[in-house]
Amino acid sequence: MSPASKLLVDIHTHVYLPRYAALLRSRAGAAAVPFIRTNTTPEGLAEDRLLILDHEPSESLTSWSEKLKFMDKHGIDVSVVSTANPWLDFLPASQAHTLAAELNDDLEQYCSTGPSVSSSTQIKRLYGFGLLPLVPEITTSALLEIVNQISTLPHLRGLIMGTRGIGNGLDDEALEPVWAAIEKAGLVVFLHPHYGVDGSAWGDKDNGHVLPLALGFPFETTTVSSKYHFSFRIRPQREMKAATRLILSGVFDKFPNLRLLLAHSGGALPALSSRLASCIDHDPAVASRLKHDARYYLGKLYLDAVTYGPEELGFVSDVISRSAGYASVASVSKVANRSTGSKRMLFGTDHPFFPPLSATEKWKSVTENLEAIASVQGWSKGDKDGVRGRNALALFNLQG
Amino acid sequence: MSPASKLLVDIHTHVYLPRYAALLRSRAGAAAVPFIRTNTTPEGLAEDRLLILDHEPSESLTSWSEKLKFMDKHGIDVSVVSTANPWLDFLPASQAHTLAAELNDDLEQYCSTGPSVSSSTQIKRLYGFGLLPLVPEITTSALLEIVNQISTLPHLRGLIMGTRGIGNGLDDEALEPVWAAIEKAGLVVFLHPHYGVDGSAWGDKDNGHVLPLALGFPFETTTVSSKYHFSFRIRPQREMKAATRLILSGVFDKFPNLRLLLAHSGGALPALSSRLASCIDHDPAVASRLKHDARYYLGKLYLDAVTYGPEELGFVSDVISRSAGYASVASVSKVANRSTGSKRMLFGTDHPFFPPLSATEKWKSVTENLEAIASVQGWSKGDKDGVRGRNALALFNLQG
Repeated sequence: MSPASKLLVDIHTHVYLPRYAALLRSRAGAAAVPFIRTNTTPEGLAEDRLLILDHEPSESLTSWSEKLKFMDKHGIDVSVVSTANPWLDFLPASQAHTLAAELNDDLEQYCSTGPSVSSSTQIKRLYGFGLLPLVPEITTSALLEIVNQISTLPHLRGLIMGTRGIGNGLDDEALEPVWAAIEKAGLVVFLHPHYGVDGSAWGDKDNGHVLPLALGFPFETTTVSSKYHFSFRIRPQREMKAATRLILSGVFDKFPNLRLLLAHSGGALPALSSRLASCIDHDPAVASRLKHDARYYLGKLYLDAVTYGPEELGFVSDVISRSAGYASVASVSKVANRSTGSKRMLFGTDHPFFPPLSATEKWKSVTENLEAIASVQGWSKGDKDGVRGRNALALFNLQG
Repeated sequence: MSPASKLLVDIHTHVYLPRYAALLRSRAGAAAVPFIRTNTTPEGLAEDRLLILDHEPSESLTSWSEKLKFMDKHGIDVSVVSTANPWLDFLPASQAHTLAAELNDDLEQYCSTGPSVSSSTQIKRLYGFGLLPLVPEITTSALLEIVNQISTLPHLRGLIMGTRGIGNGLDDEALEPVWAAIEKAGLVVFLHPHYGVDGSAWGDKDNGHVLPLALGFPFETTTVSSKYHFSFRIRPQREMKAATRLILSGVFDKFPNLRLLLAHSGGALPALSSRLASCIDHDPAVASRLKHDARYYLGKLYLDAVTYGPEELGFVSDVISRSAGYASVASVSKVANRSTGSKRMLFGTDHPFFPPLSATEKWKSVTENLEAIASVQGWSKGDKDGVRGRNALALFNLQG
């Protein structure tokens, strides 16, 4: 087993817990996704198909043992597991509240009953991100109660959320007590897309799920969905906008120690951050609301390293590295060290999504992302070890 | 005056020609943007306000002499001028057809009556991108007739287009004869956003125009609007999707010499191109339609250098540089030379948009983009001169 500094830690890996799967299965007669339909295979066996997006036969569900099997196959020592989208977004408030508490307990058990990395360490192989009942009509006290629950469950080290908040996006003032509680508890928020962009943007050509997955999800992280509605059409740009709207709301000025981890390396936010800063510069009303240049706030983020290419990772690292230079206009330094940015980047796989076309091969989503990390120009061996695992051990306070 | 190798050439600069402005002014009673409203200033003077987006008082119009004044103020030797959005998108086919021909003649005159760069050169200070009547119901022969017209006007070196095509996006088979004619004529297509993404994605907070301009426009370039409709709401992710959908349609396999210039450095496409390649890899139906890995096609593009930051430019350059390595899977080379990518990148300003807050200062959109070019790590002095002007002289065949 690897020494702690060499552990491979996957921080972007999802699970459908049995209680959640049962709920979805009970919705098979429902008009709207998400639900699970039980099909019969050509061999006469029952097979569950999860439908989370209209017309999409989704990935098969994964069990606890399949997660560990996947980890073993790819040399992943530790996984920080999160419930996959769409979480509790489609439920009425009281049901979402009850289920969040139950699923958090379930996830704690899922992790705590797992093995340890080795006999010589306290580090377990499974940790988790809990769930908040982020739905319209939920009370602030219910949200704070669940934040508190998560903070008391020893194997949960953060929480995953989509981009809608309680219906008005993540820049909603109503969420400020929630950010404050999360910041105080030291939990990591994993911001993950689900809705993408309006499906009409993808055109009439049959491109499978390539466009909504390749572009839609990252767009969603960048901005964010504003209005809650129950149609689960593919609405992908909203993820990247989520983070942008959070920045524009001044949330990082109010909660400077909030630890926000963005899926898919922040979507398009790094690539558009100087354009964003320039647009803000031309709009005094927005500029005066923020303490810093927009590029400064990218250095407050943590980003997964799920970009599938080394040039992408190197650029994201540059964008984090340069952020300190934008604390004030006067201090802008022209040459930022790419190493600095690597400290806030963390390996992930997006398992169980993107399965290989043949069951025996290694998953490309794993091998491509590992190869990308290994190939980044300007990252030292230590930087790469950090992205593969050591940064996660520090962020989630996983001690040996 | 600079020697030809040192000329500063602005390839992203817009104009509202008098005939176009008159049309918009005549629509002031219309329910829908775009139109021009004539206001009275506090001093009692008439002042034109162009409204191209709902509720948006747009930039003031620019005249021929103001364009040259702007160029002189910033040391810009040559501008390749294009009609600003929304072009002819809102007109019925016959009117769009007539007006395209007239506006192309007007633009030829706008350019040809301008000065030369110096007495010792044939290079003029103004060149232009023509307009096609890309609207529903237009005939292919009308489109081909206008492509032909543009190719015969000596100062027009390309054409600008939005992302809707004739109503079904740019991956519409109906456009194939048009791509073929454009390729044959050697014209440059400048792909520019207008519609952005659905306004609801920006949320309820008043962020001025920051989100639709900073994020919406680049998203639009990346993908593209699919359905033509007359509501001019802000729909920004469609620009980047435009280019992605073109790639997925195999247009670069069919028309390998098509010269496509993307606004705003391709929006989020460079940052999401490895993710796109990975998603295609997992979808055999899409993968089998394309001759190459998606990343190969980014090397077929030309990209403006309008990103406002040196790290962004360097990354875009990397993405172009690596493209040759993706011609076939076997030939992937791990270290691409950043210089190569610079050859397809071209300085631009987005004038007359993003005016300074005070009339006397230099425009930040110019100074920031020039400073970004000057600061890219790994670009030689020659690479930077290329991006500032020499690449444009070659692409548009502007000879001294």
